[in-house]
Formats: sequence, structure tokens, C-alpha cells
Amino acid sequence: MNAEIISIGDELLIGQVVNTNQAYIAEQLNTVGISVTRMTTVGDRESEILGSFKEVWKSHDIAVVTGGLGPTHDDITRSVVCKFFDTNLVKNEEALENVKRLFGSRGLPVTTLNEQQALVPNGCTVIQNTQGTAPGYLFEKEGKTMVVMPGVPFEMTAMMENFVLPHFSLKVKGIVVRHRTLKTTGIAESLLAERIGDVGALFSPGSGITLAFLPSPLGVRLRISVSSSSAADADRALSDVEAKLRAKAHKYIYGMEKEELEDIVGRLLIERRMTIAVAESCTGGLIMDRLTDVPGSSAYFLHGDVVYSNESKIARVGMPEEILAEHGAVSREVAEALAEGIRKQSGTDIGVSTTGIAGPSGGTDEKPVGLLWIGFSDKQTTFAMKFNFGNNRRRFKERASQAALELVRRKLLKIE
Amino acid sequence: MNAEIISIGDELLIGQVVNTNQAYIAEQLNTVGISVTRMTTVGDRESEILGSFKEVWKSHDIAVVTGGLGPTHDDITRSVVCKFFDTNLVKNEEALENVKRLFGSRGLPVTTLNEQQALVPNGCTVIQNTQGTAPGYLFEKEGKTMVVMPGVPFEMTAMMENFVLPHFSLKVKGIVVRHRTLKTTGIAESLLAERIGDVGALFSPGSGITLAFLPSPLGVRLRISVSSSSAADADRALSDVEAKLRAKAHKYIYGMEKEELEDIVGRLLIERRMTIAVAESCTGGLIMDRLTDVPGSSAYFLHGDVVYSNESKIARVGMPEEILAEHGAVSREVAEALAEGIRKQSGTDIGVSTTGIAGPSGGTDEKPVGLLWIGFSDKQTTFAMKFNFGNNRRRFKERASQAALELVRRKLLKIE
Repeated sequence: MNAEIISIGDELLIGQVVNTNQAYIAEQLNTVGISVTRMTTVGDRESEILGSFKEVWKSHDIAVVTGGLGPTHDDITRSVVCKFFDTNLVKNEEALENVKRLFGSRGLPVTTLNEQQALVPNGCTVIQNTQGTAPGYLFEKEGKTMVVMPGVPFEMTAMMENFVLPHFSLKVKGIVVRHRTLKTTGIAESLLAERIGDVGALFSPGSGITLAFLPSPLGVRLRISVSSSSAADADRALSDVEAKLRAKAHKYIYGMEKEELEDIVGRLLIERRMTIAVAESCTGGLIMDRLTDVPGSSAYFLHGDVVYSNESKIARVGMPEEILAEHGAVSREVAEALAEGIRKQSGTDIGVSTTGIAGPSGGTDEKPVGLLWIGFSDKQTTFAMKFNFGNNRRRFKERASQAALELVRRKLLKIE
Repeated sequence: MNAEIISIGDELLIGQVVNTNQAYIAEQLNTVGISVTRMTTVGDRESEILGSFKEVWKSHDIAVVTGGLGPTHDDITRSVVCKFFDTNLVKNEEALENVKRLFGSRGLPVTTLNEQQALVPNGCTVIQNTQGTAPGYLFEKEGKTMVVMPGVPFEMTAMMENFVLPHFSLKVKGIVVRHRTLKTTGIAESLLAERIGDVGALFSPGSGITLAFLPSPLGVRLRISVSSSSAADADRALSDVEAKLRAKAHKYIYGMEKEELEDIVGRLLIERRMTIAVAESCTGGLIMDRLTDVPGSSAYFLHGDVVYSNESKIARVGMPEEILAEHGAVSREVAEALAEGIRKQSGTDIGVSTTGIAGPSGGTDEKPVGLLWIGFSDKQTTFAMKFNFGNNRRRFKERASQAALELVRRKLLKIE
């Protein structure tokens, strides 16, 4: 079965909001064997919405629609759905109870606007909203299915998990599609492609296997896709191609699927019963933010400093003043002193540090914007490595945090 | 003139990558008076790409296409473009020089794969790529325009800024479309809607003015849109509606357009020549990461600690051990002691702190997952406020960082 995802909202068409719903829905449908073959975004106008409904009803088995179900005047999806299915609104008691319960638990009054959200198109299956007030709808007609959900991401994801995916997973049979993604960092796309070499040596054309290179500022992902009539065959093919890729690019592959580098580093630290502390200058707390995104990270991440001023580098991490004076804040020596200082002061096994020039200004010929030193210290050794990550401030911080975590991973795994 | 944005890539259809390009392109086209009326995403298959090209050529003035121009085997957009415009590939010397220059500056060898990227469709205007190796193309034919760019966001954005936007801004005349967005935080969408009241009192129907409510975990944005035949009229209407909205929701409106709370707080601190330090527990560095995303933030942000363990709260911020023992780490008393401690130790005017239970585990009946205390301390006062931000770890951190920055903003502006 194939599906089209239709997103509704002027905020998307004027670029005010990045559409994260489409990626989430596509990925989730994929897991139950539904291929998304098109994604479309239209505005909050009846003609555009109706046009997209008519088109998807002709060309796809399933339409997943989000957006325009909120309580305010600019939300018109519900009335267009009624028009498309030639039906009217009826009150849904369960949805009304939900609205009252939700507002009650927050100690807020229920408004007339909110009460109206309990009206649903007659003839649909109602998808209750556990996270908000607007219910969703499911229509099945002429062998086709349309699902309509709010555009608020966490309301929509709860409906997908609790209702939509279980609903579809009962219906889909036949072809199995499987993906596996290996995540690399520290190597450019074209160099990775050369290292991997001829794709024809990994699998034969017509085998239902494909390999995609997906670059991003944090690294290149390698995605293997297999379509097969048997899940066992598909999994075997994925493992076979994965092994060939690992043989060629082992040291750059840090994780799989949704694993982030902070997940991997966290797992390695737990396995080794080791602890870490961080002293960040130019990355401003991003390394620690990432480390603490991992549930349970308090087991190994004990403490960190953002030493943004020179005074704080001296006062808070015990940086010798003369190192700063002699080499400047952005230097190998300062990176090393920060890493060693934070490790000793926090009593951890590992200390990591960053110092650099995130820009957009503050660079010189000798120390340009984008220059970064990452320091590492454990009980055996203290050293620093130099990078240049360009002149976009946020991208610099992201790439710097990635390189720092990768340095820890490689040290823990003794990968040169 | 209207435009459709077409994104190409299986990674989008299986939901592996969130499409940020569409929002960026739409927003930028809007600034030069081009309305995006549809966004479409299709896969890396010739039939799907060709189908979308034929459709857009019928229905829109402008097609902006991204993706599938990379150096690897899964990139087929260039060949489909040749087929659609019935043309062939020719070598572009400038693009070849660019490839050589780019790799030379990174000290990397130029591969055959990369050299092939300097081949472009005959008859197009070549858009040079200052950030990467794949050039873009512009075709003008039959009164329509098609722009084709790589999907890598920072390569595409550079092409938009350097070439595409200047190109279109010379061509567009007629209707002026203007948007203005007010950003609120700390109030739910429905309560904000009630506070603002009847939209008909803000502007009359048929006036070409619309108001949209855009909720997100960090707050609700209010977007005013005006279409008019004169820029002066449009701007006057925007200012009029803005003034009415401010009169009704003043204290919740922290900024406009793309301003983030960290930008506003930074500007207020600079105006007042004040400095800030941060002690984060549950937010793990995110407040500091946001503060340091602002260029020039080193003028007011001096230092911060991520005091993740109890030991580090005691050792690094001078937290009295008995406060921790008596009240527990997640308490009003600890939030206050952290805020005051970090302020005094860093010698800043303001200290801010967080302590809470980010989850997914670690909650009790008395102190559930989602509980947050934010501490604030300046030379006059030290206090803490309690919040509950739910059981999604990342969303908890984001909302907590927003509430902490908002608390600073309101204190600086003496808003209740």
C-alpha cells in the first residue's frame, strides 16, 4: 500500500515553520510496510485543500492529513473534510470529556472555543487526542483510507502511536521493506564514496537493494534499503551489505539508525564504569546539552563548566594565567589545560574541552573564524587536536560538539 | 508570481531527514514577492521526478527544485533535468575550477567523481556553488523559470542568497505581501485567543489582512499577514494590528520575527550593562548553549556550571550540604542556593539556575517527572518559581530553558 502525506497550513508555505511531521509520519508508516511516495503541502484555503484531497483519492491508497484542526478562526480543515465526504458535524462525548479533563488537570477554565473542538464529522472513526483538545478522524471508503490529525507535533505523534499505526499494521501484507542506516562522522562524502568503492561489488543490480549517501554537517549517513518478499531474506541482505561497508569504513562508523554520538559515548562510559567532565568555551554548553539528552546520563556525566570569559577560565578551572597570556585563549595549550583542569577538579576519569572562534567576528589571519582546539585528558595522557569548522556560528558549534564527542569515542575504543 | 518547491530524495520519503529546505526557500521567495502555493516531495526515481516537473510546468510560474545533484550513484536529478529540457551535458570550466579550489583548500585530492560534477545541462545558466562541488542550474523557457540546486542546506542557501534571490527580485512587480510575527511564551493558545478576543475587532473581513495562531512547545506565535497593492499601506496595516495585539497581550510578547528569547535577553543585558551566570542541573547546558548562540554574548555571559551531580552542586557552587540533605536536589531551596551561589562565585549581576526531573524516570508522587524549579538571584533579591513541563525529556529541557530565559526577561523589564 502506498500513501501520500498532506500538510495543511500557511505557516508552512511562507516558511515560518519547518515541517517535521512529514518525516515522522513517513518513517512510522514505513515501519508497518506502507511506502510514502509523495508529500504535499498546501495552504489554509478550501480550494487548495479540496484539490489535494481529490488528487490523493485518485492516486494513492492512503492519505495522511495534518494541520488546521486547532481552535482558532484560521483552522478550516474540519469543514473541508465535511465537504469532501459530504457530511456534517456531530458532538463527540468522549472528546468533550477529554477537553474538560485536560483543562481541569491544568487548573484552566474550559472555553467555548475549546468545547467546539469536540464536534467531529459524522461517519468518521474518532481518534481521541491524549495530548490536546482537537480529536482526529479516520475515514474508510471505496477501499481507501484518509486519516486527519492536528498539526501540533506531539499531539499527532501520540495519535500515530496509539491509534494509526496499530490500525494499519493489521492491514498490510506482502512486500517487506527494510532500511538500515550506518552513521559516520569525520570524513567527507566523496572520500567515503571512494573508500567504499564500486557499489556493484556490494550487491548486484536488480537485487532489490539500494545504498544512499546522506550528508549532513554532523557526518554522512549510509542507508541500505532492501525490498523483499520475506523479512528473513531482507534482514540477511541488510546484514551482508552492512558487513561489507563496515570492512571498508569501520573507524568512521559510530552508530546506527537514530543513535546519536552522545548515546554511544554514554554507553561506552557505562560499560567501562568511567565518568566524564567537560569544560566548554566556544561550544557554550552544547556538548553537555547533548550528553544530558541521554536518559541516565547522570551515571557518568558529573559536572561541566562553560568558561566563556578569560577570568572564568582562570578562576574556575585553575588555568594558569601565564598560559593564557602566552598562547591566547584559542590555543593548544589552553585546550589541554582546560581538559586536565576540569578532570582533576571534578574527580572524573576523563576531561574534555573546547576553545575556538565561533564567529562571525573575532578572527585574525593567524587564528581565523572557525578555528577550534579540542582538549582531551585522562589519567594516562593529555592532548589537543586542531580543527576548522567554518564561519556559521551554529554550524560551528554543532560540528565542534560532534568532533569532541567523536574524539572521546575513538579514545575509549582505542581507534587511532 | 507563484512558485512550487519540489524536493527530491528517498531520504525525505522514508522520513530519515527533516526537510528544512522548503521552509527556508519559501520564506526567502516571500521576501521578494513570490508566493509559494505548493510544496511537493518525490523520490529518487525518474518517473516521479519527471511527473512533478510536468505538473509544475503546467500550474506554476516558478519551480524551485532541490536534491539529487550529489556525486554518488543515487543522485539522478541532473539526468532527469536533461531529459525534461531535451538537452545534454557539457563541461563547465568555472565549476571545474571551483571543485579544484575547494578540495585544494582542504588539502584533499580531487576525485573523478568530483570532476564529473562540473558537467552541466547545455542551455542552462549555471549557478556556481561556493560551498560545495555540485553547481546549480537555472532554465527560463515559455515564460516559466526552473531553478535546480543541491539539497545540502548550506550549499543551497548560499546559492539562494548569491544568485536566485537577486535574480527574482529584479522581475517581480505588483502585489505586495507582508508578514509580521509576534512571539509569545507562557500562555496557552486558547487562553491567548480569548485574551485577544474577536478577530473582527482587529481588522475587517475583506481587508486583505489575516491573523494566524501558531503554537509550539516554546510558545504561540501570532502572525499577521497583509496583501496590498502598496508597500506603505501594507506596513501601516501591519503596525495597526500589531498595536492592537500588543494592547491585549503585552506581557506575553517577548519578540518579533526570528528573534529568540536569548537574543532579547542579550540585548536587554547589553543595554543595562549587566552580566549573567548560570547554574544548570536538569537543563544540562541548554540555557548556556542558547545564550552563546548569540554573536557577542561574551559581553554579558561570563560563566556557567552544569552541576549534574550532588557533589558538584556542593563543591562547585558552594551549595550548603544541609540544604541538599534537608530539601532534596529538586527543591525551591536548592534552586535559590544555586542561583545565588553562581552569581556570587562568578561576580555577575544576575544568577539563574534550574533543578528538576527531566525523566523519563526518577519521579515520585511528591516530585513527579516534569517538575522544575527555576532560581533567580540579583543584588536585590533571590527567589525560585515552580513549573511542570511534562515527561518528554527533550521537550522538558526546551520548555525549561525558555521559562528560565523568560523569567530573566520579565525581571529585567520589571513585568509583574
